[in-house]
Amino acid sequence: MNAEVVTSDGVGEAFRLLDLTGVFANALLGGLIARREKLDPIGFATLAVLSGLGGGLLRDVLLQHGTPIALTDYAYLLTALAGAATSYLTTVEGPVWDRMWPLLDAVALGCWACTGAQKTLAVGLGWLPAVLLGVVTAVGGGAVRDVVLRRIPGILGGNTLYATAAILAAGAQVALARAGTTVGGSLVGLVLGAGVCMLARWRGWILPSADAWSPARVVPVRYRAKLRRRRDNDHPRQRRQP
Amino acid sequence: MNAEVVTSDGVGEAFRLLDLTGVFANALLGGLIARREKLDPIGFATLAVLSGLGGGLLRDVLLQHGTPIALTDYAYLLTALAGAATSYLTTVEGPVWDRMWPLLDAVALGCWACTGAQKTLAVGLGWLPAVLLGVVTAVGGGAVRDVVLRRIPGILGGNTLYATAAILAAGAQVALARAGTTVGGSLVGLVLGAGVCMLARWRGWILPSADAWSPARVVPVRYRAKLRRRRDNDHPRQRRQP
Amino acid sequence: MNAEVVTSDGVGEAFRLLDLTGVFANALLGGLIARREKLDPIGFATLAVLSGLGGGLLRDVLLQHGTPIALTDYAYLLTALAGAATSYLTTVEGPVWDRMWPLLDAVALGCWACTGAQKTLAVGLGWLPAVLLGVVTAVGGGAVRDVVLRRIPGILGGNTLYATAAILAAGAQVALARAGTTVGGSLVGLVLGAGVCMLARWRGWILPSADAWSPARVVPVRYRAKLRRRRDNDHPRQRRQP
Repeated sequence: MNAEVVTSDGVGEAFRLLDLTGVFANALLGGLIARREKLDPIGFATLAVLSGLGGGLLRDVLLQHGTPIALTDYAYLLTALAGAATSYLTTVEGPVWDRMWPLLDAVALGCWACTGAQKTLAVGLGWLPAVLLGVVTAVGGGAVRDVVLRRIPGILGGNTLYATAAILAAGAQVALARAGTTVGGSLVGLVLGAGVCMLARWRGWILPSADAWSPARVVPVRYRAKLRRRRDNDHPRQRRQP
Repeated sequence: MNAEVVTSDGVGEAFRLLDLTGVFANALLGGLIARREKLDPIGFATLAVLSGLGGGLLRDVLLQHGTPIALTDYAYLLTALAGAATSYLTTVEGPVWDRMWPLLDAVALGCWACTGAQKTLAVGLGWLPAVLLGVVTAVGGGAVRDVVLRRIPGILGGNTLYATAAILAAGAQVALARAGTTVGGSLVGLVLGAGVCMLARWRGWILPSADAWSPARVVPVRYRAKLRRRRDNDHPRQRRQP
Repeated sequence: MNAEVVTSDGVGEAFRLLDLTGVFANALLGGLIARREKLDPIGFATLAVLSGLGGGLLRDVLLQHGTPIALTDYAYLLTALAGAATSYLTTVEGPVWDRMWPLLDAVALGCWACTGAQKTLAVGLGWLPAVLLGVVTAVGGGAVRDVVLRRIPGILGGNTLYATAAILAAGAQVALARAGTTVGGSLVGLVLGAGVCMLARWRGWILPSADAWSPARVVPVRYRAKLRRRRDNDHPRQRRQP
């Protein structure tokens, strides 16, 4: 019931294929961004590798259990570079692609969350780091790419449930793996993660930002204004930078 | 006299508690920033984990001696998430908190610099990487958080002695550990690091920026202007980006 | 014919010297940037370490084969700090330095690409990760420094052939090492990488950005405009952030 067993049977092989599909889709997406930023082929390859392999690289570096799979299994690097080349040589934009992106993205998210969580369990760590590294695998590559491009990573908020879908997928994987069925966990996690991600995008679901919940909203308005005035006088936005 | 011995006795246990206090305080601080940026719960958790655990994760990834403690010892991740939840559900702002932050921050700085330096020594590395990784442990999490939020990390300059306090704390830890008293090093380092950090904040001590020391200041003004003119003509700010 | 053998003979020692020269040159360059940003000594040291050692640290962390050499071999850290001190205490600008930078930079690029590729081969990985990590070693430090300073890394495009020169150097190292002559690979790779880098800078060679190749250019103009109109109506720049 460890990762090795999974990858040796048919379901494991199917999952590896999904994993690589996610790498290809995210590499294409990296290339799409590279085109908008008018980058050269090196820029396409860099964004494709960061988008497609960044999450898994982060996970493997944090796990500290051997060289990252993206460096030992050629399929990963070649798939990412193929995605970069495809989006450099063709235009992967248009009505059909615009319908495909969310689906590919959601499937990659669910798949990566499950593989990340399962790999963490297989290494002997507990449920909490397994969920964390599942999420890191799923959203880490996009976040690194965003930081390199000087964007605030989308996972920090304001988007539809993305990291939340990854948490659910990784959680399902962990729970069912603990209950004895790793393969079942992967299937349920994939469907749950991809489903919630698609649903949230379709319905526009987002998490409440801090303001909506803030206890400050319950404090009477006049007292609140007084508090804020005092605070602003003492510390005029000292941590804010222009 | 290695890290294991330290953590098995009372002083070590006290230090672990300080360490976790630092994680909690920095996670709260991460949450405070998340509130100002109007992030959702995922954003709070992300900034709390980066602020509270980022330095230790960086250190352990650079040391390459097993899975980072933040992933194996549940207390760390749970403490960071508790900090995120606390600052999401309550407002940790106001006069009392404004007085607490500098103290908590300074204690975490001193504590992390000592644990980082000591862990590096325990792994068999020398004094120079021990001081470096002590500083990375103390300031790395905040720096990563700043980069993710598209701020220039505060440690790069213009602030009161922060990294300098970490260097002093890590240096004291290394020197006294070499002299035979790891526990003494931790206590002296903690007091020294936290003290210098507090004092510098109180007195407004900063390091001189390069301009203040620049040898160019000694070169006669007319010659300097001529030099600058020639340089500007040859290379009109080629490395600057808008 | 592995890295150990190389570093034990004369050519290996010469290469280590070149490696450290590259560390010093890039640390000076980091200091130059620190001066322009008016940073304090900590800022100088941080940018010097990131610029001079960042690529090797990234490579060693990704390889997961023991503590990074920059932490175990004191020469690296001391050289980087010496570079920081030099550029803090003197002004390494002026006509002579402006002629030196490109040469030092190109030599460091070629040298780092070869050492990165060779170290990856020595660890038992194949040609593809060897070329990738050669490039990461050569350009990673500068990229990390740029991200920390909120610049879009130069390697993403618009510059003269820089990553391309690193790919050629790493490729030559891998090909000749496979053909039996590691030392020959290092020499050819160094000359090729440094040469292409200098030539590209001199002649202004850049890679074509995506627009120049875009298949969209072959699609008739009227149809293309129609397509773009439809796309913009459906998805008004949804992935762009302000």
